[in-house]
Formats: sequence, C-alpha cells, structure tokens
Amino acid sequence: MSLGNLEFDEDGLIPAIIQDAETDEVLMMAYMNEKSLKNTIRTGRTCFWSRSRQELWWKGETSGNIQEVEEIKYDCDGDTLLIKVEQTGGACHTGHKSCFYRGIKRSEEAEKVFDPEEAYDKT
Amino acid sequence: MSLGNLEFDEDGLIPAIIQDAETDEVLMMAYMNEKSLKNTIRTGRTCFWSRSRQELWWKGETSGNIQEVEEIKYDCDGDTLLIKVEQTGGACHTGHKSCFYRGIKRSEEAEKVFDPEEAYDKT
Repeated sequence: MSLGNLEFDEDGLIPAIIQDAETDEVLMMAYMNEKSLKNTIRTGRTCFWSRSRQELWWKGETSGNIQEVEEIKYDCDGDTLLIKVEQTGGACHTGHKSCFYRGIKRSEEAEKVFDPEEAYDKT
Repeated sequence: MSLGNLEFDEDGLIPAIIQDAETDEVLMMAYMNEKSLKNTIRTGRTCFWSRSRQELWWKGETSGNIQEVEEIKYDCDGDTLLIKVEQTGGACHTGHKSCFYRGIKRSEEAEKVFDPEEAYDKT
C-alpha cells in the first residue's frame, strides 16, 4: 500500500470526509495523519488525529459508535480523503447521526436595518 | 444572515464539502473565506477562496461548470460546511464528475515480495 499520491499539510494532516456507505449521507469531517490513516487501512476501522487533544483517536472507542470502512478515495490533488463507512449508532457526539444537522438559511431578502417590533411598539 | 456560529481557521478559511443534491455523490472539497461564503449565500452560486492563487474563485467562471446552491449546512463545532448543489457538467478540472475518482485499495493480503510472473516464466 502506497500513500505516495497523498499530500499531507504542513501539520502532517489530511482532511477525511466520512460518508455513510448505504445512504450516502455525509456524516462528519475529521483529520488523519499518516499513522491514523495506516491504522484505518490496516484495521478497517476509522482512526483520526485529534487536533484539540493532539493524539490518535479511534472513532467509537468510548461511545461504541465505530465506523467500518468500505472504501477510501482521494481527490484530484491528493489533499482530501473521502471514506465510505458503515456507521454504528451515530457519528456525532451530540447524538445526531450526522454532524451536519444545522443549516444556514439563504434568503433573497435584504437585512433589516431596524427592529419593527420595537419601533412600532405603542405600549 | 449571521455567520456567528461558524469558526474560520487562523487563515480565515473554512472547508466546504460539495455534494450533488440529486445523487448525494461527494463532488469536491474547497475552502471559503467569509467573503466567498457571503458571495455564495447572496448569489446562490458557489464562490471559493483559492489557496494556491490567493484570490476569490467563482466556480465555473472559466469552464461554465457552475454549482447552484440548494442547501448549506455546518457541522457540530461549526468548522466545516456541507453544501448541496446542482452541478453543471463536472466538478473536477480533470473532466470527471467528482474529484474523488481514485481509490486506495485495502487488502487483507500481505504485500508480495517477488513477482511470480517473472519468477515462473519458463520461456
């Protein structure tokens, strides 16, 4: 197995998009270093690098919500991974299946410049 | 529209995963700064920040392969975006629909230490 096509950043990390192999829902994004990627390839379970804790992080080690790897792809410039997994339980520590459970509303409306409730309050 | 829930990194960037709204195929990942994200929200077409060229990059400006935004989500810690788009043509500059057109093989098999075709070639 060669990782020669991959480009790790200046911290030795590469972002990994995790996608549900069955539903194609995007579950989360986390970072891998070479060691955690090799662990992932060797064991078939995702292992990441925790940037906040600065340590290897076996997904599901505490929660039991492991990810079994079905497929690992990399993008045209080799600096991002896409990993399809079979997710046990949910991927997000908040209890959601996916970490992407909130949205930004797009609106054609211009921003309001004053608060009408306050301006027109007659009481 | 408030971007207060988002966390841009030390370079003012946030990674954006781009997913096909119809097929759920992951098409690419690129980076946005606040300005390109606001452009994306305002116009409904993706605009990124090119880290290599250090400039705003309207996706499809040259190729015509624009992305019309259907939905913008952000993850639990607010440091990654997931944008569902209607992709014209292909997302990848190589001509592929998705930038993730190559895979890393996982194999339970140990690496071969010699080439049997060569070793057993009797001609």
